[in-house]
Amino acid sequence: MRKPKLLMTPGPTPLPPEVISAMSQQIIHHRTKEFGEIFSRVNENLKKVFQTKNNVLTFAASGTGAMEASAVNFFSEGDTVLVVSVGVFGDRFINICKTFGLNVIEKKYPYGDVANIDEVIEIIESNKDIKGVFITHNETSTGVTNPIEKLARYLKNTDKILIVDAVSSLGAIDLKTDEWGVDVVVTGSQKALMSPPGLAFVSVSEKAWEFYKTSKLRKFYWDFKKYQDNLLKESQDTPFTPAVTLIRAVDVGLKLILDYGLENNFKRHTRLAHLTQLAAEKLNLELLPKKEYSSAVITAIKSPEGVDIEKVRKIMNQKYDIMVTGGQATLKGKIIRIGHMGYVDEFDLLKTIECFELALLEVGYKNFEVGEATKAVLQEIAKEVSENK
Amino acid sequence: MRKPKLLMTPGPTPLPPEVISAMSQQIIHHRTKEFGEIFSRVNENLKKVFQTKNNVLTFAASGTGAMEASAVNFFSEGDTVLVVSVGVFGDRFINICKTFGLNVIEKKYPYGDVANIDEVIEIIESNKDIKGVFITHNETSTGVTNPIEKLARYLKNTDKILIVDAVSSLGAIDLKTDEWGVDVVVTGSQKALMSPPGLAFVSVSEKAWEFYKTSKLRKFYWDFKKYQDNLLKESQDTPFTPAVTLIRAVDVGLKLILDYGLENNFKRHTRLAHLTQLAAEKLNLELLPKKEYSSAVITAIKSPEGVDIEKVRKIMNQKYDIMVTGGQATLKGKIIRIGHMGYVDEFDLLKTIECFELALLEVGYKNFEVGEATKAVLQEIAKEVSENK
Repeated sequence: MRKPKLLMTPGPTPLPPEVISAMSQQIIHHRTKEFGEIFSRVNENLKKVFQTKNNVLTFAASGTGAMEASAVNFFSEGDTVLVVSVGVFGDRFINICKTFGLNVIEKKYPYGDVANIDEVIEIIESNKDIKGVFITHNETSTGVTNPIEKLARYLKNTDKILIVDAVSSLGAIDLKTDEWGVDVVVTGSQKALMSPPGLAFVSVSEKAWEFYKTSKLRKFYWDFKKYQDNLLKESQDTPFTPAVTLIRAVDVGLKLILDYGLENNFKRHTRLAHLTQLAAEKLNLELLPKKEYSSAVITAIKSPEGVDIEKVRKIMNQKYDIMVTGGQATLKGKIIRIGHMGYVDEFDLLKTIECFELALLEVGYKNFEVGEATKAVLQEIAKEVSENK
Repeated sequence: MRKPKLLMTPGPTPLPPEVISAMSQQIIHHRTKEFGEIFSRVNENLKKVFQTKNNVLTFAASGTGAMEASAVNFFSEGDTVLVVSVGVFGDRFINICKTFGLNVIEKKYPYGDVANIDEVIEIIESNKDIKGVFITHNETSTGVTNPIEKLARYLKNTDKILIVDAVSSLGAIDLKTDEWGVDVVVTGSQKALMSPPGLAFVSVSEKAWEFYKTSKLRKFYWDFKKYQDNLLKESQDTPFTPAVTLIRAVDVGLKLILDYGLENNFKRHTRLAHLTQLAAEKLNLELLPKKEYSSAVITAIKSPEGVDIEKVRKIMNQKYDIMVTGGQATLKGKIIRIGHMGYVDEFDLLKTIECFELALLEVGYKNFEVGEATKAVLQEIAKEVSENK
């Protein structure tokens, strides 16, 4: 008897039963009052999760589609932009910007490092041509969260805009869009929003709308104004047929997050990260990034010397039905990544750690005592429980 | 006590219960054997419905996204293309091609007319620069189906490619992609494929792949090669996170169509159109297009003199919970469109005609005897039933 796979990955993340049942309904037409009501509620709740007063635009697309959209809506060929990359998804922004003919200044950090915002600001100050800055909030490929607040507050008072890939962070890691002054925030449905993949969302500041006006890059499906105009109608919809079923799902996902409380959700993810880091420590394993900027939604752990970490991952998947993730690009075979994002709790994490222990043992890793990591995590949970009594 | 709305619209169309329940499952990760198996089956079945040996590419997007994709993957700025338009969706192709800097020769026909393929071929012969031709297969805004076979067979032996918007026709109206020589066919999940909106599909011929090689228009999310490469892998997936839930849905939708038989499905839609045309005749109403090219999936009926047809539409929707569609653009208030696409049967159609009769009566239309149209359609059904005994 096998249970469904437990997805401890950086997305897609497990769906709450309420989200699943929201999708098992007959289709409704999108040009109706009934859909308009659902979509308006989604839009209002998106604003809350994005922490913005501005409209959030909804696309039938993967997150990458919205990343592309956030390049083609604000710039023109030859415009200079700075892209800060600390991993695979930062590199994707570089590729996108180059593909659309932008003059890209690349600031790349080694995989596992965090962006040095002072350094980034220096680059901006010494390149007056820079019109926009792209950065990843949470880089899932390395388990690093960039401290974007400082960058946002700096750029707020300049004539440049900040575009943030928050695909894997929004809703799980604090991102005060308006307060910090982040102009464009991009996210997807299948991460912290606890919904299936297929929807992407983008918030746009007033400053960014000014950039929109002068942008000459060609756009039709991604044209933000078309989406904005349809949000200003009495019964809100989208310019092209929306993915109705997925919007029903995210409607429920958003409600669950807001009922739980956005702040509580941030704390919950930080605690899961803390417990995962503790387990790694007890297993005598090193994190890829430094602890202080290790992500709240995904923990990247280095493979110990002589251990086939890909085999560990496969045992966890095939024998114990727990999906964790390996390394991407140059990190392949060098790290294992445990996601703790969205609809997963402490007991999902405990099960993951238990199976991680068993799998490490199976591949011959000896530098730990079986059960110590699990015990330490359970003790930490016990401490929290008694403190909260 | 109210029943759910019956969607007699040109999409989204009603979902079969099997499709609905396919979506009420826990999410699975897309980089797994389990997803690979589903996706491979979808891809094989898409080929059957597209009637092609070539791969069909799957996008998380609305149909319009794939229309855009079919322009940016094959051409370069300044390339001359011919766009044949008989309505709103043909005009959309014109807008898209212009947006991306193509030199567009527009051949527009009045709303309600069909494209004259001989005339189209003449234009092609007198403009040697034309590299590609865009045409709508079934134009839902006017209820017209263009006879694309002749155009395809002509272009097959030229150095030009044919791009067909089959969003509302594929699976319901015969389109022999390979046999006729249609290079690029675009469709969406929410029409004849009986699935929710949010997925778009594109087939690409070998000849079109040659055009891809020289195309300089910028593309990232829509880049066909990225999708093609991921179909050549051992476990097929997509370059960016796929809309897993919708792929599960379309997997079931495709199976239902193929079990029923593609040819049978074409006949079924033709019969529904025939019955709708018969009802219009008995109601002394005129079709917008000539009967011989009136669509098999949607029937556009002219408003009789002095009748508020928008009111008829609203009564059908609000009092009887049947959604039919009005006119778009310049046809607003001038026609009513009854969709008979996908998961609708003769009794759905009979109910629609019954309510159409009641609503016409309510707005004061007098040129018919209540029940005559319904009776005629039922008699026609009875004839078919006895013939098939």
